Amino acid sequence: MARTIEVTDVILRDAHQSLIATRMAMEDMVPVCEDLDKAGYWSLECWGGATYDSCIRFLNEDPWERLRTFKKLLPNTRTQMLLRGQNLLGYRHYEDTVVDKFVEKAAINGMDVFRVFDALNDVRNLKRAMAAVKRTGKHAQGTICYTTSPVHTPQKFIEMALRLQDMGVDSICIKDMAALLKPQPAYDIVKGIKEKCGDDMLIHVHVHSTTGVTLVSLMKAIEAGADIVDTAVSSMSLGPGHNPTESLVEMLEGTGYETKLDLERIYRVRDHFAKIKKRYGEFMSEFQVETEIFKSQIPGGMLSNMESQLKQQGAADKMKEVLLEVPKVRKDAGYPPLVTPSSQIVGTQAVLNVMMGEYKVLSGEFADLMLGYYGQTDDEKNPEVIAKAKEQTKKEVITDRPADHIAPEWDKLVDEATKLPGNNGTEEDVLTYAMFPQVAPKFFAARDQGPKNLGKDPEAAKPAAPADPSHPGYLAGPIDYQVSVNGTTKKVTVSPV
Amino acid sequence: MARTIEVTDVILRDAHQSLIATRMAMEDMVPVCEDLDKAGYWSLECWGGATYDSCIRFLNEDPWERLRTFKKLLPNTRTQMLLRGQNLLGYRHYEDTVVDKFVEKAAINGMDVFRVFDALNDVRNLKRAMAAVKRTGKHAQGTICYTTSPVHTPQKFIEMALRLQDMGVDSICIKDMAALLKPQPAYDIVKGIKEKCGDDMLIHVHVHSTTGVTLVSLMKAIEAGADIVDTAVSSMSLGPGHNPTESLVEMLEGTGYETKLDLERIYRVRDHFAKIKKRYGEFMSEFQVETEIFKSQIPGGMLSNMESQLKQQGAADKMKEVLLEVPKVRKDAGYPPLVTPSSQIVGTQAVLNVMMGEYKVLSGEFADLMLGYYGQTDDEKNPEVIAKAKEQTKKEVITDRPADHIAPEWDKLVDEATKLPGNNGTEEDVLTYAMFPQVAPKFFAARDQGPKNLGKDPEAAKPAAPADPSHPGYLAGPIDYQVSVNGTTKKVTVSPV
Repeated sequence: MARTIEVTDVILRDAHQSLIATRMAMEDMVPVCEDLDKAGYWSLECWGGATYDSCIRFLNEDPWERLRTFKKLLPNTRTQMLLRGQNLLGYRHYEDTVVDKFVEKAAINGMDVFRVFDALNDVRNLKRAMAAVKRTGKHAQGTICYTTSPVHTPQKFIEMALRLQDMGVDSICIKDMAALLKPQPAYDIVKGIKEKCGDDMLIHVHVHSTTGVTLVSLMKAIEAGADIVDTAVSSMSLGPGHNPTESLVEMLEGTGYETKLDLERIYRVRDHFAKIKKRYGEFMSEFQVETEIFKSQIPGGMLSNMESQLKQQGAADKMKEVLLEVPKVRKDAGYPPLVTPSSQIVGTQAVLNVMMGEYKVLSGEFADLMLGYYGQTDDEKNPEVIAKAKEQTKKEVITDRPADHIAPEWDKLVDEATKLPGNNGTEEDVLTYAMFPQVAPKFFAARDQGPKNLGKDPEAAKPAAPADPSHPGYLAGPIDYQVSVNGTTKKVTVSPV
Repeated sequence: MARTIEVTDVILRDAHQSLIATRMAMEDMVPVCEDLDKAGYWSLECWGGATYDSCIRFLNEDPWERLRTFKKLLPNTRTQMLLRGQNLLGYRHYEDTVVDKFVEKAAINGMDVFRVFDALNDVRNLKRAMAAVKRTGKHAQGTICYTTSPVHTPQKFIEMALRLQDMGVDSICIKDMAALLKPQPAYDIVKGIKEKCGDDMLIHVHVHSTTGVTLVSLMKAIEAGADIVDTAVSSMSLGPGHNPTESLVEMLEGTGYETKLDLERIYRVRDHFAKIKKRYGEFMSEFQVETEIFKSQIPGGMLSNMESQLKQQGAADKMKEVLLEVPKVRKDAGYPPLVTPSSQIVGTQAVLNVMMGEYKVLSGEFADLMLGYYGQTDDEKNPEVIAKAKEQTKKEVITDRPADHIAPEWDKLVDEATKLPGNNGTEEDVLTYAMFPQVAPKFFAARDQGPKNLGKDPEAAKPAAPADPSHPGYLAGPIDYQVSVNGTTKKVTVSPV
């Protein structure tokens, strides 16, 4: 008897986030929902991550309406989302009530599986969201962000799994957003978690395919006992995206493992997106295998952000120095995983170090990171840099949970949101405003015009997009940084290229 | 102590044959030879396959000069070629003297490793070439073409390995030209060969990446004891090509296996081809993962040939019927592997069956296949179809070695070749004429004008080629078929699309 391996397809969320900058219009996904729903997946990731931001910023589409539509069209399969813990889907920490409200509303509108992560792997930043999910009776998946550094041994991740188990998670996700997870550590970590947390603890493995090695890692994770793996239908797979679903199904033949997927249905989904994706050529990230990240630790999206920052300052020739600076900054910051927003924060600080001298200028966000306002890192931070952060910001180091320092904000958010023209009076709209205060007003005002489809006839569309919006570090929209130099504060904006 | 896995890079031959229709100009490969030579490869595949044909047909380049140049530029690494057994690099069987001459000349001009295969896996078709290689003191690699069918069990391939061992091969290659080799059979076959032939028998695994599963298969082959694997530098990898060399190196970390490759040198090679390949956009096969071949058994290149044949006859709407016909024809023919030339022969017969009625018309080549003139197949052939082949061709079934039916031809070839204007009087030129009698005259006459580089400035080049010249079944040039209907013979030409 072969053991069944369950599969989550990320075609409706992370696949297009990774390959076409999250621009897929809802109407281009609707036609395949029936086949996806009946293909036998454990879940379909279809919401969260950057899709919320993209819906209101680029597609003039209400993300809550999208969620309700998916729920309606996928009656037989779990819906799944990616949630950034205390950051929700925004770029800062929120006060607990906002977190509770978000989770409650997502559950009511149709979300079944909440994959919750923190960019620093600080489980305290997951706790509130996980508790909220548990209250709704939905599936609470605790997430380990995989990264590599001298302190990130398999043992470290296994210990984190135990902390997630203590929190009462329904499953544990190993999330490898930068395709750094090689076969042997994949095996060792999954094996270790099963041994420590018990065979009953469901393990879900999420890998990207950027480095070309991770289908092998999935094989090894499965051999070690992984229960569920993430893939994407082949026509929207590989490159900075994910391993092809069909290849996973086929590779297991005769191995003692098998999926229960219906390939005929999946081929129809594949054919649909093979056609559709040509309409998104201008957003398409160039396909490439990239293994140098194993050495540099710098994901593609982070690279292009740093390049654009240097160009803006007429210093494109400094790229090599910046590349050498990144690992140093990461070490000083206690080896955070490089994922939104830590990848941007570390990258920007590396640029500042090269341009202005080492830690002469700290971005406000980097100072906050050093002072504990994003949570704890897995390694000790450099005390000299902490001292500079204190000096420049006049703020103190904190060691407790960052959200405990945020004053209640829900009532104020309701107040501000409901005043905006076009606001529909729902708590969902308050949440949209809470997470994207700059974008929400424009979206509310224009919502009546209905969703936009940015896809274009391939003949009309321009070939090749210059940007490389690879997964980690990719900015859906501009982020403002406060930079303080000897008491004078300057605003630095990092925009998507 | 980790076991060393040796690597052959196919970047100088099969990578560009699979991805840009064998069009890479020599001058675009020369700049990376030093890095490739010093990177630590077991061998560099750089000659044979379709490159000889392409050199004289498209590039106005003397293939023997190419070989001598590679030998000079790669002093530290074995050169390697792909040889079609008794077919040499042409499309018919040659008399033994021609085979001996070819091997002798290839060895003298710089070839170190001869990978010799037969499209039907009939080892009698390898025997003469292998013996010739042994006489030169070079490395004789016997090849098993991997395919799937009810008769192609791991046991079948292990038995073939034993026959190759009896022949005195220096190593055994498992050649998976259609990316059909899944992880479990990869493991079972390698394990079985090591058990039966002894641990000392070197096993070399060649896979394409079309189906997306074969890097996992390489991992399993390595776990089972494979000694050498084929990959291609990442910027010329994947799709109908091969798995990325860098990914192979990285994936082995911590597994107890390791390569000795110098990644810094390989990154320079990668960067070079990343730039160069943009110049070959018009020949570039579209990247795709294709897993339906596991069911249909029809490689991409064969598909496009059949499509073009149907279109020429205004019957493009019959494609579905042809697709259903191919497995039937293959079964009737005794389940030959589908690789040049068997893929074209089977595909053309499937088209004829659909257009004119089942076996109402046999192509001359298909009749020859049924009558044993290509050698023996692994399964019994359909006796009714054999009877039709006898009737239509008035030829008898043969069961001995096909080349035994060929009269001595070397002197005649010398005679004809030396009369051609531009012939340089060498035996190398006789071989060129022997293998490509239609193309050689034009090439000899134009040789003085020197090699052409078909690469174009990407701005000037047209985007996207319509053809899909995936590896197996891809035609570098037109092939003529003789079709006999009730005694009347017609010529059918199959051209590359």
